[in-house]
Amino acid sequence: MPEELTIDRARSEDVPAIVVLLADDPLGASRERPEDLAGYLRAFEAIEADPHQYLAVARRQGRIVGTFQLSIIPGLARHGTTRAQLEAVRVHPDERGTGLGTELVLWAEHEARRRGCALLQLTSDATREGAHRFYERLGYRATHVGFKKDLG
Amino acid sequence: MPEELTIDRARSEDVPAIVVLLADDPLGASRERPEDLAGYLRAFEAIEADPHQYLAVARRQGRIVGTFQLSIIPGLARHGTTRAQLEAVRVHPDERGTGLGTELVLWAEHEARRRGCALLQLTSDATREGAHRFYERLGYRATHVGFKKDLG
Repeated sequence: MPEELTIDRARSEDVPAIVVLLADDPLGASRERPEDLAGYLRAFEAIEADPHQYLAVARRQGRIVGTFQLSIIPGLARHGTTRAQLEAVRVHPDERGTGLGTELVLWAEHEARRRGCALLQLTSDATREGAHRFYERLGYRATHVGFKKDLG
Repeated sequence: MPEELTIDRARSEDVPAIVVLLADDPLGASRERPEDLAGYLRAFEAIEADPHQYLAVARRQGRIVGTFQLSIIPGLARHGTTRAQLEAVRVHPDERGTGLGTELVLWAEHEARRRGCALLQLTSDATREGAHRFYERLGYRATHVGFKKDLG
């Protein structure tokens, strides 16, 4: 019998484990600095202070095995559709292939609907082909090109 | 001498003109219902109530000639980088080719930096090739694939 999974709002004491998940990734490895937590803890406070952000952690047997952030974005387009946006979805390496990623996305969709969102959007790095197939299986359509610019 | 351009936060009386800009577009035409303003006005109130949203209008001689929405999204990824996101960028047909689009994006970048954002991100429909070249000229990199799913 599989161990019970829980998905809840992250607490500040969860930040180190979330950062390890963010860093344990081909792209994240060069972007993250798990040994320097101060910046992450400041960002956590900003997330906590914003009622339109939900940083989630998935636990099994008390261990953090997944994370994502859901943002609620009101807007005029599409007849005033409120959209939800998924960022920073990560699954622990030990849990890949277990269906945990699907559970995270379905949970996020449920929460987005509960908050009145009619659309869920996300972007995925163009190199993450496995992730693209994953989202397509879940009914997401790759209709857009995602652009980024460093403002530094 | 060109007429002076101003860029400011939208007011509720600007909503009808913004909706006309959203609808005056190959993709927007089928998505928007400018004759039914109630949904847009409700969305405007939600934008106004959220200090992390900035709905902008550009005016020339008192006429609305452009719009965009800037969203400020705190997050743990990239060592706690706060990101800005640009949505619903539109330029009046009479103003295309005048550099107004560039002015809108540079204004958004300035405001994003002022609010502590180190990254600006946006998505553009895969069919909008002219828009893609425009963003690339402004230093944006098409690193991501943008997925959407209707939750209806």
